[in-house]
Amino acid sequence: MLYLIGLGINDEKDISLKGIDAIKSCDAVFAELYTCPIHADLSNLEKLTSKKIQLLNRKQVEEDELVLKSAKSCDTAFLVGGDALSATTHTEIILDAKKAGIDVKVIHASSIFTAIAETGLMLYKFGKTVSLPIPQENYFPTTPYTNIKDNLDSNLHTLLLLDIGMSANKAIDVLLELEGKMNGKLFSDSSKLVVVAHLGGDSLIKYDAISNLKKMDFGIQPHALIIPSALHFHEEEFLELF
Amino acid sequence: MLYLIGLGINDEKDISLKGIDAIKSCDAVFAELYTCPIHADLSNLEKLTSKKIQLLNRKQVEEDELVLKSAKSCDTAFLVGGDALSATTHTEIILDAKKAGIDVKVIHASSIFTAIAETGLMLYKFGKTVSLPIPQENYFPTTPYTNIKDNLDSNLHTLLLLDIGMSANKAIDVLLELEGKMNGKLFSDSSKLVVVAHLGGDSLIKYDAISNLKKMDFGIQPHALIIPSALHFHEEEFLELF
Repeated sequence: MLYLIGLGINDEKDISLKGIDAIKSCDAVFAELYTCPIHADLSNLEKLTSKKIQLLNRKQVEEDELVLKSAKSCDTAFLVGGDALSATTHTEIILDAKKAGIDVKVIHASSIFTAIAETGLMLYKFGKTVSLPIPQENYFPTTPYTNIKDNLDSNLHTLLLLDIGMSANKAIDVLLELEGKMNGKLFSDSSKLVVVAHLGGDSLIKYDAISNLKKMDFGIQPHALIIPSALHFHEEEFLELF
Repeated sequence: MLYLIGLGINDEKDISLKGIDAIKSCDAVFAELYTCPIHADLSNLEKLTSKKIQLLNRKQVEEDELVLKSAKSCDTAFLVGGDALSATTHTEIILDAKKAGIDVKVIHASSIFTAIAETGLMLYKFGKTVSLPIPQENYFPTTPYTNIKDNLDSNLHTLLLLDIGMSANKAIDVLLELEGKMNGKLFSDSSKLVVVAHLGGDSLIKYDAISNLKKMDFGIQPHALIIPSALHFHEEEFLELF
C-alpha cells in the first residue's frame, strides 16, 4: 500500500489524525518539501509516530523513484506539503503505482486553494488558478497575464501562485512589467490587489493599492497574490479589515 | 479568542493536530454539520480532547449567534465540516467577531475543492465552482448551466457541488433537463462526466458516459460531479483508470 499524505498548509501540525495513523502503520516513510515549501519540522512527526522519515530531493522522487520502489515491497507513506495532490508530480506517482498494481490511498490536508477564503473572498468566485514564474533572460511568458485577463473578463478572482522563492513584491514588479508589454490596462499603481503571506500560520493579509503594497515587507514566504474582480459588498467589507 | 476549525473532508479523523490542540485550549466547543455534512463522530473527538462538544443547528448558529456570544466571554472553538471557510456563513461569523473586537484564528483542513485532484484532473484547469440546487416547482435556475458553458468555452473543468441530499444521479437528470431548456449542446447521453462520491473516505470515482452513470449507485453521499473540458493526455490516461 502507498499512502500519499498531505502535510497541510503551514507546518507539521497541519497533518490530519488520519495521516498520523497512516504513518504509524507503514514500514517506510518518505517526505518531500520542494514542491510546496512549508515550515514543517519533521523531527516532531518522527517523535509522534516513532517512525524515521527520509526527506527526498527532486531527483530521488522523480528519477530514482524511491517512493515507488519502496511501495512495491512494503507499506509506504509519502508526505508532501499542502494537500496531497496539489502538485502534478504526485498525480504521476499515483498513476505509476496503479500501473504497477500497488494500492494507493490519498489522505488530504489543507491547501492554499481553500485557505485564501481567509481574505473573505468567496471560493466559488475564483476562476482559473495562475502560476507566475520568475522571468529568465530568454523566458518571460505572457500567459499569466492573459489568464488573469480572462478571469477578470468573466468577473472572477484570480489566485496567483508564485514561483518558489518569489516574494509578493517581486511578483508585483513582474505584473507591472507584463502590463508594459501587453497593455491590457489590468494593472496600474492604483490597482488594488490582495497579498497573502504564510497563510494558516501567522497569516498576513493586505488589501491595498500596488503603489503601497510595493513598499511593504510581508515576512517569510510563501506569498501569493489575489487579483480581485468586482467585489460583492460582503467581500469588500471583509477586505477593508486588512 | 475564537478558533474556527475545519473538520476536513470525510470524518472526524480529518481534523489537523493544530485543530486538536486548539480544542484542548478552549473553554467552550461548538460544531455544526449542516453546511457540509461529513461523517464525523464527534464523541471520538470529545474523548480525545476531554472537551464536551455542543452540536448546533442552523438557527443556533445564524440567529441565536451562540458561537459569537460564547467567544465574547471565553476562548471558544467552532468546528465545521470541510475547510474552515468553504461556507459563506462562517466568513460572516469572522466578520462579526472582528467587529466585536474578538481575535479570530482559522485552522484549515481538507476540502472537496482540492480533493477532486484524486481524479487526476489538474486543479489549475478548473474554472468557477458551480452549485446545483434541487429544483423546486417555481425555482429552476439556469445559471448553473450558463456557468458550466462559460467554463467549457474557456477550456476549464467545472466542479459541480450538489445541494444537500442530492445524489449524482439526480444531478445528471437536472443537467439533462437544463439541456432541454437551454439547448446549448453541452450534455447528451454520450457525454462523459466524472462522478466523485465520499472523497477522502473510501473514495469512489467514475468516469463514464451519462447513459451509464445514470444507472450506477454511488453509495453514501456527499456526491459531486465534474464536467471535464478538453483533457490533457495525462488527465485522460488517469481518468481511464476509473
